[in-house]
Amino acid sequence: MTTLQNDTFLRALMRQPTDYTPVWLMRQAGRYLPEYNATRKQAGSFLNLCKNPSAATEVTLQPLERFPLDAAILFSDILTIPDAMGLGLYFAEGEGPKFERTVRDEAAVAKLAVPDIGATLRYVTDAVSQIRRALNGRVPLIGFSGSPWTLACYMVEGGGSSDHHTVKAMAYQRPDLMHRILDTNARAVAAYLNAQIEAGAQAVMIFDTWGGALSAAAYKKFSLAYITQVVALLKRENEGRRVPVIVFTKGGGLWLEDIAACGCDAVGVDWTIELSQARARVGAKVALQGNLDPTVLFAGPEAIRAEVGQVLASYGKGAGHVFNLGHGISQFTPPEHAAALVKAVHELSPAYHG
Amino acid sequence: MTTLQNDTFLRALMRQPTDYTPVWLMRQAGRYLPEYNATRKQAGSFLNLCKNPSAATEVTLQPLERFPLDAAILFSDILTIPDAMGLGLYFAEGEGPKFERTVRDEAAVAKLAVPDIGATLRYVTDAVSQIRRALNGRVPLIGFSGSPWTLACYMVEGGGSSDHHTVKAMAYQRPDLMHRILDTNARAVAAYLNAQIEAGAQAVMIFDTWGGALSAAAYKKFSLAYITQVVALLKRENEGRRVPVIVFTKGGGLWLEDIAACGCDAVGVDWTIELSQARARVGAKVALQGNLDPTVLFAGPEAIRAEVGQVLASYGKGAGHVFNLGHGISQFTPPEHAAALVKAVHELSPAYHG
Repeated sequence: MTTLQNDTFLRALMRQPTDYTPVWLMRQAGRYLPEYNATRKQAGSFLNLCKNPSAATEVTLQPLERFPLDAAILFSDILTIPDAMGLGLYFAEGEGPKFERTVRDEAAVAKLAVPDIGATLRYVTDAVSQIRRALNGRVPLIGFSGSPWTLACYMVEGGGSSDHHTVKAMAYQRPDLMHRILDTNARAVAAYLNAQIEAGAQAVMIFDTWGGALSAAAYKKFSLAYITQVVALLKRENEGRRVPVIVFTKGGGLWLEDIAACGCDAVGVDWTIELSQARARVGAKVALQGNLDPTVLFAGPEAIRAEVGQVLASYGKGAGHVFNLGHGISQFTPPEHAAALVKAVHELSPAYHG
Repeated sequence: MTTLQNDTFLRALMRQPTDYTPVWLMRQAGRYLPEYNATRKQAGSFLNLCKNPSAATEVTLQPLERFPLDAAILFSDILTIPDAMGLGLYFAEGEGPKFERTVRDEAAVAKLAVPDIGATLRYVTDAVSQIRRALNGRVPLIGFSGSPWTLACYMVEGGGSSDHHTVKAMAYQRPDLMHRILDTNARAVAAYLNAQIEAGAQAVMIFDTWGGALSAAAYKKFSLAYITQVVALLKRENEGRRVPVIVFTKGGGLWLEDIAACGCDAVGVDWTIELSQARARVGAKVALQGNLDPTVLFAGPEAIRAEVGQVLASYGKGAGHVFNLGHGISQFTPPEHAAALVKAVHELSPAYHG
């Protein structure tokens, strides 16, 4: 394996000293980049892009050509696992992800099984290997998966939902069924992330996009318990180096202590929590990743710089902070504003280190 | 004025002893009730319903005929103020509220002014008076308004938004313009709520539906500061009795201490926070209103009763709790499930009082 030239991101996740605060952006390879849209057009669809390792490699590297980011993240979708389970993922134009088959009753739950990752998700592990070769040690590569609960939201609802009432009603009415789905999902997510790690992912992130839609008690039972199960099953070392795990529950600020205790190395936080408070609560235990409001990127470069400065100041001096947005970058973001963010982090953050 | 026969709700808001925990439901007069849909059909549209005091009175009382609720809430919309400012509120079928004119630049902001409530929102104060007469002292009547920030979200975006990036970009890029809008809104909201109080509203609630979309720092500057301004301007006594003020910021659980310090009597909380924790943090200062996840009402009566029990147990013994959902009831809720909720609160809560 090639030597890693920039390990700032991995060091920050382990709360080791760095010269500056590393930065990457959730959904950094995406529709706000014209070159991404060109590749996607060529591929024919978003799913074709995900399923073609060469195309996935190309778009994964695109943002790195524009901005000096400190990490790359596998280009893929959080819903590859339920697709591999046979639910039939598709994207209706302008409508987000949908499944041909939902999982709403005893019979559908009985049919669910952990997919054979090598047979069904080879396109993902191939992409990971190919991206690693293309990166050639430039920056670390992040692998990822949706959380068991977040996958269940889509599997039960059959797509996105404004209030998730079908999946939540199942959790309240038939907790037995819900736990069976979640246990299957947890074992699938662990196998999937381990396959990504074996293929070369140098850190992994679990996206719990919909955990924050639950009540505090339900979050612990239906989301965090299964994230904890996943983390316990992960391979934590590869190529002679620790593989850090980041857990991000959008809207999970109230539950930080519980999340930080799940076995992960870092917790992603959205912009509703002050980083200073998050650090005071869990900073001795985990690194923190976040947390600029992505809508700040709709303001001009000076306002962006000022807000980047606020986030850095809020975390304060010392190790353990990975700069990121608090959620994925919007498709309507001007790319030069993303450039202004990365520049501001790299210019302003050394004052908080060394 | 008629004597109030059931003041449990008002007493709970003042953290005075009661025999049981009072209950009402956000959006209790709404589309989940067939009788509401019939009246609305007759009125021709949602806005006609809001603007006709007799029809508004009719639908306000409908849920009280079905369930022994402890409060009535004025049937109206949070966007009546910007409509009165001349922005042209309308509802596109199945699309939510929209405005014909948005407020996005210096010129549009310069045109904004506090509307003459008597001239433009007479239909609301007439509805309040008429509902009070129709209630005849049965339970107290709640008046309400959107918060200055929540109104601004719709005024700048021109309707609903998934990420509010236009209004948030304005806040970051042109805070001067944003503060002018918010100051106008705050004075308008205060005048509007005072007019409702003078017409007979016995408690008022400020709905800050979109405050939780802001960062912690931006919430304090752009939402809470103006809620505080509104609360300071309110008439707090009428008919020889205190008029309690409830402030509800959806997603505001991380900022409870700040919200509780705004001058209000009670804080509404959504289901992401444990009531026990909320009470430990601010219960000595304010009453709490909430916080069952409305999706629990998609489960059956037994599951509903169990979850009601959890919410009551989480608040624990003693005064200062108004039972409610953590957000508006869904239009797809079976009415008999709302009945099961009210029944469970009335049956299970006496154990926590006296």
